[in-house]
Amino acid sequence: MIAKQGLEGIVATTSSISSIIDDNLTYVGYNIDDLTENATFEEVIYLLWHLELPTKEQLQELKNQIADNMELPKEVIATLKSMPTDKIHPMAALRTAVSLLGLYDDEADVMEKEANYRKAIRLQAKMPTIVAAFSRIRKGLEPVAPRKDFDIAENFLYMLNGKEPEKIEVEAMNKALILHADHELNASTFTARVCVATLSDVYSGITSAIGALKGPLHGGANEQVMKMLTEIGSVDKAEQYVLDKLSKKEKIMGFGHRVYRSGDPRAKHLKEMSRKLTELTGEPEWYDISVKVHETFTSQKPLPPNVDFYSASVYHSLGIDHDLFTPIFAVSRVSGWLAHILEQYDNNRLIRPRAEYTGPSLRQYVPVDQR
Amino acid sequence: MIAKQGLEGIVATTSSISSIIDDNLTYVGYNIDDLTENATFEEVIYLLWHLELPTKEQLQELKNQIADNMELPKEVIATLKSMPTDKIHPMAALRTAVSLLGLYDDEADVMEKEANYRKAIRLQAKMPTIVAAFSRIRKGLEPVAPRKDFDIAENFLYMLNGKEPEKIEVEAMNKALILHADHELNASTFTARVCVATLSDVYSGITSAIGALKGPLHGGANEQVMKMLTEIGSVDKAEQYVLDKLSKKEKIMGFGHRVYRSGDPRAKHLKEMSRKLTELTGEPEWYDISVKVHETFTSQKPLPPNVDFYSASVYHSLGIDHDLFTPIFAVSRVSGWLAHILEQYDNNRLIRPRAEYTGPSLRQYVPVDQR
Repeated sequence: MIAKQGLEGIVATTSSISSIIDDNLTYVGYNIDDLTENATFEEVIYLLWHLELPTKEQLQELKNQIADNMELPKEVIATLKSMPTDKIHPMAALRTAVSLLGLYDDEADVMEKEANYRKAIRLQAKMPTIVAAFSRIRKGLEPVAPRKDFDIAENFLYMLNGKEPEKIEVEAMNKALILHADHELNASTFTARVCVATLSDVYSGITSAIGALKGPLHGGANEQVMKMLTEIGSVDKAEQYVLDKLSKKEKIMGFGHRVYRSGDPRAKHLKEMSRKLTELTGEPEWYDISVKVHETFTSQKPLPPNVDFYSASVYHSLGIDHDLFTPIFAVSRVSGWLAHILEQYDNNRLIRPRAEYTGPSLRQYVPVDQR
Repeated sequence: MIAKQGLEGIVATTSSISSIIDDNLTYVGYNIDDLTENATFEEVIYLLWHLELPTKEQLQELKNQIADNMELPKEVIATLKSMPTDKIHPMAALRTAVSLLGLYDDEADVMEKEANYRKAIRLQAKMPTIVAAFSRIRKGLEPVAPRKDFDIAENFLYMLNGKEPEKIEVEAMNKALILHADHELNASTFTARVCVATLSDVYSGITSAIGALKGPLHGGANEQVMKMLTEIGSVDKAEQYVLDKLSKKEKIMGFGHRVYRSGDPRAKHLKEMSRKLTELTGEPEWYDISVKVHETFTSQKPLPPNVDFYSASVYHSLGIDHDLFTPIFAVSRVSGWLAHILEQYDNNRLIRPRAEYTGPSLRQYVPVDQR
């Protein structure tokens, strides 16, 4: 059976974690709109890992476990400090730090179910700390230690900026984390599942997923969107910019999606957050430019904006460096990656498709001096 | 289209690099038997990357490029030295070191074809140095600097042991490197292709492939085979050991393959090398135990030995630590991973299949204190 290029339309596995049906995204049966309006990121993590929302006690237990595991081994901090931070992409630093983290987990290669769950907690707890520490270190600042009384969204902004964030910022970060948490068999999640289907360990799976998310056709797109908005600079230049790009057949990031046809259900939440936050920061032009790009693009091409398009101006408004947009995506998506890795282990089979050979036909070796 | 579990039988891509047809393995049209008998690993690398065997000049150029790129950045050596080497698997160290290596390559994120080829050379050149350096460091020894006048097989054994290897050892290593170089869309190669199909960088692709190869259902199997041979200990215990395992329905590593039906064409070469080398080292029992396990197992199950089965006693006879068997596999397979990554870039599309949702149907969020 020869699949379309990119395995388009091939159902590669069953999964109980998230679904995309008729352009609706649900996490374990809950519509993403419902969760974004009402839930916390910690509740969503629990939902993805246990397939049920937690009771009060279960939620508190998970929060305690995360709080107890946020600190990084001193060796990981030391390696982050030794990196050539001004020359590298934060995703390359994150990929390396997560791989390194595995060396300091005595249970890294223990394949029991409970040990794998403990590793999931450790990784979910430590990823925000790594991203924030890297950001501080490259500015010549000391990393800020995580606070046990803060949830992930608040802690992350606190560790990044060294001051307690505003309530509306925490709310926006919480919603953004929920919206990016899982997305069925996206490319980084699929990378993680292919990797661990060899029965490799959780750290290998997450490291490979970070590598995949780094690509501009996946998580890297939100950074590219902000680059474009910055290049445009003012709302009156947006229309011409988009038309010029399209006439040169250049790609504009943040639109279209392999799976959604009528639109990405996550985009509307990020658009609304973008409107609110850019108003609050006194920089509504980022929202206005975004809307103009959106309108111009969709008047020319039948591709609605995806999750990356409005998340750019949201993260910018939260004062986050543009090259940290994809690492933040990873801080959220690691919850989904971990859910999929645990699910893969539960009913595993090596993922090993075939290639159709299109190279030269059989020939005989000729010694090098006769070639 | 719902695929069989593990994407069995699904043709996920076209490829001109290697083919498995009627249980014959070819690299770009050359039968693996032909290459193993006649070629050097460097010729095979060139073949996989250029789809032709090199002329004398082309081969010399590749050898020079590899020789010029074998040394590791001092920061990578320092990180290897800082690792808790007595507690970790060498594959976790290799995964981390390769990810770290990307931070010291100024072209890591340059996506031009020539830059990607240069990165391929750097990675192929440095992988043996990393594995050998790690092995030295964990024994409390200084890494041995690579020699420019040695090919990869000879250099690797030299850096590992700090002395010039015997000719027969170099020949065996060269053959083993050729036999493991590529294998169509195996799990680690597929992981690398899924990863870089997001247009992520070469270092991300190779890091993720190392993560996948680490798994015992893939590269990790050769180490497991040696563990079994050691447990058995003498040829008279082999038959009972296998029968006991089978009666307890326990898995025996090194047999069977998703793709081959009548047998893995690589196994016979490794079997012959195992016979010769174990005789030479005066430890023929490793070969004898292997043959007895092979005979007993295949008398009970219709699964012939695969590439991992006899490679175990081959590597053991070369004096290589058992947990380095999989890293050596990586030193070879990186040539194929790189070929597939370059091929993926040349005609890229995001690899993004679907999942069939099997979780709870749509439900409404209920606040936590009402659960």
